[in-house]
Amino acid sequence: MSKILVVGSVAFDEIITPFGQTGKILGGSASYISLAAQKLIDDVGIVSVIGNDFPDTYLQKFSDRHIDLSGIEKLENEKTFYWKGRYHKDLNKRDTLVTEVNALAHFKPVVPEKFKDAEFLMLGNLHPAVQHAVIDQMKKRPKLIALDTMNFWMDTAWDDLIKILKKIDIIIINEEEARQLSQEYSIVKAAKVIQKMGPKYLIIKKGEHGALLFYDNDIFFAPALPLENVFDPTGAGDTFAGGFMGRLAKKGKTDFESMKNAVICGANLASFTVEKFGTERLENVHLEEIKQRQKKFIQLTQFQIEPL
Amino acid sequence: MSKILVVGSVAFDEIITPFGQTGKILGGSASYISLAAQKLIDDVGIVSVIGNDFPDTYLQKFSDRHIDLSGIEKLENEKTFYWKGRYHKDLNKRDTLVTEVNALAHFKPVVPEKFKDAEFLMLGNLHPAVQHAVIDQMKKRPKLIALDTMNFWMDTAWDDLIKILKKIDIIIINEEEARQLSQEYSIVKAAKVIQKMGPKYLIIKKGEHGALLFYDNDIFFAPALPLENVFDPTGAGDTFAGGFMGRLAKKGKTDFESMKNAVICGANLASFTVEKFGTERLENVHLEEIKQRQKKFIQLTQFQIEPL
Repeated sequence: MSKILVVGSVAFDEIITPFGQTGKILGGSASYISLAAQKLIDDVGIVSVIGNDFPDTYLQKFSDRHIDLSGIEKLENEKTFYWKGRYHKDLNKRDTLVTEVNALAHFKPVVPEKFKDAEFLMLGNLHPAVQHAVIDQMKKRPKLIALDTMNFWMDTAWDDLIKILKKIDIIIINEEEARQLSQEYSIVKAAKVIQKMGPKYLIIKKGEHGALLFYDNDIFFAPALPLENVFDPTGAGDTFAGGFMGRLAKKGKTDFESMKNAVICGANLASFTVEKFGTERLENVHLEEIKQRQKKFIQLTQFQIEPL
Repeated sequence: MSKILVVGSVAFDEIITPFGQTGKILGGSASYISLAAQKLIDDVGIVSVIGNDFPDTYLQKFSDRHIDLSGIEKLENEKTFYWKGRYHKDLNKRDTLVTEVNALAHFKPVVPEKFKDAEFLMLGNLHPAVQHAVIDQMKKRPKLIALDTMNFWMDTAWDDLIKILKKIDIIIINEEEARQLSQEYSIVKAAKVIQKMGPKYLIIKKGEHGALLFYDNDIFFAPALPLENVFDPTGAGDTFAGGFMGRLAKKGKTDFESMKNAVICGANLASFTVEKFGTERLENVHLEEIKQRQKKFIQLTQFQIEPL
């Protein structure tokens, strides 16, 4: 079994949806990615930074699941990254109410020795120079490097972003990000432009409308599972990425056919995350439930093809 | 091979998109439905009404394709239904600029003798009482009755709509319509409510995000084909319905597995319609192209399932 190294934020979220609201709960890209990946493989490590206000009970959630925390630095004079947001009735829309970058502004990632040979590297949404610093610390080139980013880095760190795109295998972003990165409105055209920027593989996430996997001239589509109740979409995209990477690492393969299974697995795990606030549902989902839900994805998408 | 009877509007559309605009061109639900169905089976008939301004050249488009026009009545003192609309850059949004109901306000459908035993009946979007008048003229209960409707009839003809829902097998509507009909925001909950209103099968169209087929507790999803250029979405939903019904009629079957193939076929044909203005691309698409595109749908959705 391969190791996965996850780099990203470990943070506080405070979430308001039409169905209720939370206090400060566990959030952050690395949290969702690692919790999702851990459902599939054992050897997951996080590189991140937290402040002096981060509770041990939250760290315990990871260590209880044997997620390696030796790469999480605690800055004693800083507070932890904090985001507060409110979702609309249409859960595809949300307003950010508060962003306090705090410790994350001082993040100098240090990869623990035991993860310097990780075969799968997931670079969660961070400044591209920080993401690059992680690649530079790896002892050998991972089998697969995946990267998430956001519009903010396109606005503020374009050159660094362009540079790291040449170093990675797959970029996992949403529609809006793909459009800004490519300057193309059509998602299919956007994908072609982005593939020329470096990554051979590209996943465009469309939230409740699923995700598209692009490779060469091929496209594969993973729908989101239609759910009776979507409670809180926070972390769905990161859960997707974690499920995707965890699945590939479990198989130790990175071919296109394995990636198809992996995007379905990512969508599978994301369908749990949205059922409750924050990481709650993801923390507690069992492999047997994930297997049952895979059957639903198969029913949803597979059919006995009859010739026209 | 079975016969399909299509009831709906045969009309003029005038379309403005970010890419150009048309004059008055051929439009109407029955036009798209019948042209799509005819790609798959020969025996298609239309019941509709036109005015004194409807050009023979447009009727010729149907008769050239052996679509039976004996059920189209021409009202000599009326003009043909006319709709003009403008699409936004986000082609999912459009504004209606003009609607002139004209001849359609006086539509009293008369089913030609040779189609009174049609096994497949597609009731395009019309006043539900008009749709009902067609069912009443059938000599025997068709094997499958499908119905499209819209929010306007929910607002103005609720009782008639509720009545006809008990007479049909499948309703084909979009998300917004499903929400209004069911008074449920969640599409999965909406589907359950609507299935209790009569139709055993339900298709919810989501435009560029595909379509969901519901039956009992099962859901099947047909994605839209990701396209480099979507030029004009007008008629995509009716093309989908026509391709769906044509495919079922060709096979003469109405089981759930056949319906899965049929929704993929509907999405297939719709992916052509949106490539040019109005019916132009649909008119000229060849069966060989449709077969080629089916392969793309298979690549897009089917995968070698590996156990988790």
